[in-house]
Amino acid sequence: MRPEIGIGLVGFGTVGSGVYRILTRNASLIRRRVGGAVKVKGILVKDHSKRRTHALPRQLVVKHYAELLKNPEIQIIVELVGGVVFAKKIIIEALRAKKHVVTANKALIALHGKEIFQLAEKNNVDIFFEAAVGGGIPILRSIREGLAANHIRSIHAIVNGTCNFILTAMEEANLSFEAALQQAKAMGFAEADPRFDIEGTDAAHKLAILVGLSQGGYVNFKKIHHVGIKAISVYDIQMAKRFGYKIKLLAVAKSQGGKGIEAWVGPTLVPQGSMLAAVHGSNNAALVEGDYVGRTLFYGQGAGSYPTASAVVGDIMEVVRNLYADDDLSYTVPPLGHFDLHHQEANILPGLLGPSHYYLRFQVVDKPGVLGKITGILGRCGVGIQAVHQDLKQIGKKSPVALLTHVASQDKLKKAVLAIDRLAVVFEPTLVMPVEPNL
Amino acid sequence: MRPEIGIGLVGFGTVGSGVYRILTRNASLIRRRVGGAVKVKGILVKDHSKRRTHALPRQLVVKHYAELLKNPEIQIIVELVGGVVFAKKIIIEALRAKKHVVTANKALIALHGKEIFQLAEKNNVDIFFEAAVGGGIPILRSIREGLAANHIRSIHAIVNGTCNFILTAMEEANLSFEAALQQAKAMGFAEADPRFDIEGTDAAHKLAILVGLSQGGYVNFKKIHHVGIKAISVYDIQMAKRFGYKIKLLAVAKSQGGKGIEAWVGPTLVPQGSMLAAVHGSNNAALVEGDYVGRTLFYGQGAGSYPTASAVVGDIMEVVRNLYADDDLSYTVPPLGHFDLHHQEANILPGLLGPSHYYLRFQVVDKPGVLGKITGILGRCGVGIQAVHQDLKQIGKKSPVALLTHVASQDKLKKAVLAIDRLAVVFEPTLVMPVEPNL
Repeated sequence: MRPEIGIGLVGFGTVGSGVYRILTRNASLIRRRVGGAVKVKGILVKDHSKRRTHALPRQLVVKHYAELLKNPEIQIIVELVGGVVFAKKIIIEALRAKKHVVTANKALIALHGKEIFQLAEKNNVDIFFEAAVGGGIPILRSIREGLAANHIRSIHAIVNGTCNFILTAMEEANLSFEAALQQAKAMGFAEADPRFDIEGTDAAHKLAILVGLSQGGYVNFKKIHHVGIKAISVYDIQMAKRFGYKIKLLAVAKSQGGKGIEAWVGPTLVPQGSMLAAVHGSNNAALVEGDYVGRTLFYGQGAGSYPTASAVVGDIMEVVRNLYADDDLSYTVPPLGHFDLHHQEANILPGLLGPSHYYLRFQVVDKPGVLGKITGILGRCGVGIQAVHQDLKQIGKKSPVALLTHVASQDKLKKAVLAIDRLAVVFEPTLVMPVEPNL
Repeated sequence: MRPEIGIGLVGFGTVGSGVYRILTRNASLIRRRVGGAVKVKGILVKDHSKRRTHALPRQLVVKHYAELLKNPEIQIIVELVGGVVFAKKIIIEALRAKKHVVTANKALIALHGKEIFQLAEKNNVDIFFEAAVGGGIPILRSIREGLAANHIRSIHAIVNGTCNFILTAMEEANLSFEAALQQAKAMGFAEADPRFDIEGTDAAHKLAILVGLSQGGYVNFKKIHHVGIKAISVYDIQMAKRFGYKIKLLAVAKSQGGKGIEAWVGPTLVPQGSMLAAVHGSNNAALVEGDYVGRTLFYGQGAGSYPTASAVVGDIMEVVRNLYADDDLSYTVPPLGHFDLHHQEANILPGLLGPSHYYLRFQVVDKPGVLGKITGILGRCGVGIQAVHQDLKQIGKKSPVALLTHVASQDKLKKAVLAIDRLAVVFEPTLVMPVEPNL
């Protein structure tokens, strides 16, 4: 049996208490799998009097994080407080104290990853963050290790469970966006302030991490164009279905060779029979294409206490394995675990580059000749139409029109939409969604 | 930059030449990701004069495998000859020579894994075999690392691409089993002698490896009950669809607590909208359920030169990372990489244990009262009926009847089927397939 490894746990909320429970309840499994014992030696909590789902082991609680960093029995600091300011401070101090770090903090990695990874490298310690993307699904580890021999050509991922829950509820229960959002809140799948999720910011954070890991080089998440799902109506979901598709909020990255990486987040049409279309409710999935492995997909629960904690404990076990690889518990940190800081920063190309198929939905006055005007503009701009559906209700009233284009360039499409939106019979800006027919 | 790591390649067929190509073409990517160069230092081939898809680098060819084992510049032996006798000999000699081993040989691991892993442990070297299950999909690595914190509760896997290709062709092109098999042969998805695949033996090998890794303890594949897909007709596929299901050849393992592990391979009905139902053609997938992570799924190409070679190179890169973790390129091999030999052997329970929903198909004489006789027997045996379909063609002719049962115990079902098969109006033994309604 190898020497015991000590954990300093920062945060005892949903994920932190889950980590403590897994480390306690599955202790013998973990000991068997890594070859030695892993024990929580100290816990820092913000609020000592807070009522918690899982009982806080009071004998382990420390008053200040410095106690964790000074403790020679602690080799790994696990940061699960969330937020950016305090979490960053703790992680930086931990790396300086030559402690290995495990975190689930996606915003922190997306915003300050570069600084943090540089510091880890300088101090020859590891930092792992599997739980930051896709909860318990080992997506990052798979890209980093299983697919390590490949250049990653593209990623199509459903990484925001809130949005996928809402879109699934709209589809299966015919709920409006607002009603589906209320249901998501009631069931704990959406925050009281859901903007971060439904506007696509959270998915953009995760895509920045995915692209950074898979392409080499750190990615500034601010360069990733993102669109949310607020504009989607039940009508759009029904029309997409009629055309043979489902609507998913996708985080997409495509390598464009020497030019850079096309990366964006937005609602997208995926084929009914595809693996991504089968991702229901709050689940997550990432379809990753490598130059030799072809397409692989990783699927599971993208959030929740135990799935996320499962990934955190998986990371802890990897650090412990690495510690045990060297007899004196010091190990040379290999570059594979990190963003590759010595590689040039990935060049993120702005938004979707096309050419692509598109779904367009217009709100028009329902009267003879309107469809003709729209299709006429599309034709003159060189945008071909693959399928069209007009929902005739009452002459003179507002009514939606949906259509699917043939492959069209961004330029042609933009020109057409601009002209259509200027028509007097058109009420709202046209809803434009890309279509990915070959997933 | 760290010292160069040398590879001895045994076999230069489909997978071996793919490995050589990836190591050569993606050399700079691999060097960047592991921190040092990885180079093939010697290649052993059976037949020097054979024509090959990829040119054999003749300057690297050795006459005898002993040359690879004696070469101090070679740290890793990659076995890709297939078969059991020669492959086993090479691997055993390599482990004795304290070389790390990477192999894609599923039959060898399933049949002689225990002996091989014991020898690896004794010599403190690693053996990796990701490519043995699911080609390029990192299923084993995910169970071993990403889900390492979990007890694995169940596995439902599509691990034989030949069978999945045949079942997909039967469904989508309305082909008979024989016609679909011919198409699979013509397209290179089935061997000239396809028995190993279509009888479920290959899937049972892979399930033995999956169960061994996930449950701890070595699994003797001979204990795994397996049924192939020869008995499936287009009628069954259509009826399954009518009942809301697809037919897939599944490799299934379910932990039954202290009693052991239910493990079997057989055609099974999975719900139309499920992730496993969306696995088309020759693709593979494994749905793995852990006690904390919940359900995760891993999907991709399960065979082929490059996908398989991608997994082999991923394994090579893991060994290289581990070598670099210790300054003198010797590392203490952690137990996580292996089957856990010190854990008691998993107790494999024979076949499906039920209770379960079942699909039953009878070939009967089409005349009044026949359906009544069958349902009468089921009723008397305590097997409830959920749905039934009788395909009326011509009175007096042979005609199929399909039905779906409510949850029934194995005992009750067996008793009923035995009685039904004794009826004079029944032509063939009843086709029985389990239904997994909650995937």
